[in-house]
Amino acid sequence: MRGVIRTVRHRQYLMIPGPTPVPQTVALAGAAPMINHRGPEFGELLAETTRGLQQVLKTRNTVLTFPSAGTGAMEAAAVNLTAPGEKVLVGVAGEFGARFAEIFRASGADVVIVKAEPGSPVSPEAIREALCKDGSITAVVVTHNETSTGVTMDLKGIRAAIDREDVLLVADAVSSAGAIDIETDAWGIDVLVTASQKALMCPPGLAFVTVSPRAWERAEKLKARSVYFSFVSARKFLEKPSPQTPYTPAVSLLFSLREAVRMILAEGLDAVFARHALLARATRAGVRALGLELLAADDCASNTVTAVKLPAGADGHKLLGTLRDRYDVILAGGMGELAGKIFRIGHVGAVDWSDVVVTLSALEMALSDLEVPTPGFGRAVAAAEQVLRG
Amino acid sequence: MRGVIRTVRHRQYLMIPGPTPVPQTVALAGAAPMINHRGPEFGELLAETTRGLQQVLKTRNTVLTFPSAGTGAMEAAAVNLTAPGEKVLVGVAGEFGARFAEIFRASGADVVIVKAEPGSPVSPEAIREALCKDGSITAVVVTHNETSTGVTMDLKGIRAAIDREDVLLVADAVSSAGAIDIETDAWGIDVLVTASQKALMCPPGLAFVTVSPRAWERAEKLKARSVYFSFVSARKFLEKPSPQTPYTPAVSLLFSLREAVRMILAEGLDAVFARHALLARATRAGVRALGLELLAADDCASNTVTAVKLPAGADGHKLLGTLRDRYDVILAGGMGELAGKIFRIGHVGAVDWSDVVVTLSALEMALSDLEVPTPGFGRAVAAAEQVLRG
Repeated sequence: MRGVIRTVRHRQYLMIPGPTPVPQTVALAGAAPMINHRGPEFGELLAETTRGLQQVLKTRNTVLTFPSAGTGAMEAAAVNLTAPGEKVLVGVAGEFGARFAEIFRASGADVVIVKAEPGSPVSPEAIREALCKDGSITAVVVTHNETSTGVTMDLKGIRAAIDREDVLLVADAVSSAGAIDIETDAWGIDVLVTASQKALMCPPGLAFVTVSPRAWERAEKLKARSVYFSFVSARKFLEKPSPQTPYTPAVSLLFSLREAVRMILAEGLDAVFARHALLARATRAGVRALGLELLAADDCASNTVTAVKLPAGADGHKLLGTLRDRYDVILAGGMGELAGKIFRIGHVGAVDWSDVVVTLSALEMALSDLEVPTPGFGRAVAAAEQVLRG
Repeated sequence: MRGVIRTVRHRQYLMIPGPTPVPQTVALAGAAPMINHRGPEFGELLAETTRGLQQVLKTRNTVLTFPSAGTGAMEAAAVNLTAPGEKVLVGVAGEFGARFAEIFRASGADVVIVKAEPGSPVSPEAIREALCKDGSITAVVVTHNETSTGVTMDLKGIRAAIDREDVLLVADAVSSAGAIDIETDAWGIDVLVTASQKALMCPPGLAFVTVSPRAWERAEKLKARSVYFSFVSARKFLEKPSPQTPYTPAVSLLFSLREAVRMILAEGLDAVFARHALLARATRAGVRALGLELLAADDCASNTVTAVKLPAGADGHKLLGTLRDRYDVILAGGMGELAGKIFRIGHVGAVDWSDVVVTLSALEMALSDLEVPTPGFGRAVAAAEQVLRG
């Protein structure tokens, strides 16, 4: 069995759910000469990225930018919004929900968990039920898009299920914001957390938090337990006549972000969301045509990541290794209890139809390399082409 | 009929027979700070690219570098090797052969043409026959790889067919050198012409000429009719202790060339040639699976460009426009008498299996968009996958 021949340039199809491919214009924007983070150019830079993120996230709330991973912004939400001992409901439908719960627990909150089976969402009904049982819950924390299972939750429905005005809704939208429509203000999301390396097409290293007036009341009353992640301090610097940050910002990543946000707004938000939906449908159709099963039902399947059950007898480690080493297609394995049971295809950010076709073609060949029975070459690509052409 | 959704980044699959995709490392190498073309860094640069090209072209002959298109180096061959009125045999199997004949004619040579049908090569036998008829021919000029028809000629056989030691063999290898094996010295090629923008993976703007001792004798005896393209002058500067050029060289393109040649040698010449052969076979298999006919027979089909006959009733202009505007796949049309009758797929330089799969997938969809009957989605990709997996 010979390998598929490829060039030494090692072009990769980075089809993991983040970091995602960084467009060349975005990468080159980050290579601009360094500037003074206390000067006017930086103020203009931060003002533009902040305004741009408000458009992408459909919010008039403050958007704070932290030089951190998404996990850092999740921690920022925990330490700024909940006092030690305060009761918080966390919806857990996978590894990232579990991480959010762990972060709130570490920050001193009394965490109540509402769990969903892998491949299912935490439903608005389950949230409503848990809130009815316990009147002392002050915040509901959910993962909008559970990257580990490829499931998207109904944020609008969850807000509607929270019938008490004083309960905050905090959402991790790291792997969805900018790819899947989120009406931050219209849906009443108090704090939305996201990061640079997924739909925003940037390298990792920046995280963003939207903060509603109701969340500000909470944050202002609490004694700050973090200097680095202080909402109040970040806002104080952001609201200077020339916007700044409390400490050294990741300037080159902001250069990249400015370019990426311009690209997203130029494409148009609706077009970006429609593209992600189409590519997700094409991916699911292709995978199914190979005779493989999906982890999530279509009504909750994510538009940014597709979780596929490993076919019987297939070794996930070998499959991903073959895809990587012979075809330059990089997919993700299962996390936690799903390790060895699923693999995941990311289709988020700067991806288009050809990325899906190449991924499915590589999958057809790699399964054949590993002697996993499939319906034959070309089937997955054909099914995707049917969807792509509408 | 909806369009296939794509990102605003307009990533293109540049599947024309040149200019070819420039790898990012090669493009970035060209962005290095400018240097003095009379200084030591330039000497090292030109020495390295010259040595590298000697390896790629399998020659110990001098390799001269001109800041010009390939056509310029063809003209250099004409003005440096033939005196006005001298008789030259030009093998013409398409548009580029015809251009070479025109160049020699413009330089004052008495051109004898041996012509082949479109899709066929000029055979060693035809060359031998023409030489037998006319003992005054001093040079045989052929196109190694006729880009307009996707045909590769038998240079080794052609040299063997030239039984007279004093007849020079001049070959245009612009669209083949570095992708298809050429044993410049072992096969006795006196002058080989190539350029930067095909297999060498660089932007256009540099052309190269190898000159054998026999060709140098000829060039030294002739009165130079061009300052710009003078072989003797170029060699004089190249042989300085720190190599130079007679006039300002295209420095940034040489930066890129250095990187590209390093990449080619790192991949290994045999691997590069094998990759091009495999991708060509996969392309041909895919095209045939769509029910389309190829212009060239397999025994002379080029490994860098495949010419495909337009299916009955298909409008070539519309097909290429659809591929470009809806799928970001850029193919070439027919040239000269083949305009409107064929289209051409380039697979040369920094291309790998995924470029072929995307091109065939786009072709499947575009033909369907234009309601040209095909055997159905996925067939071309399946046939290519069969070949790619060997």
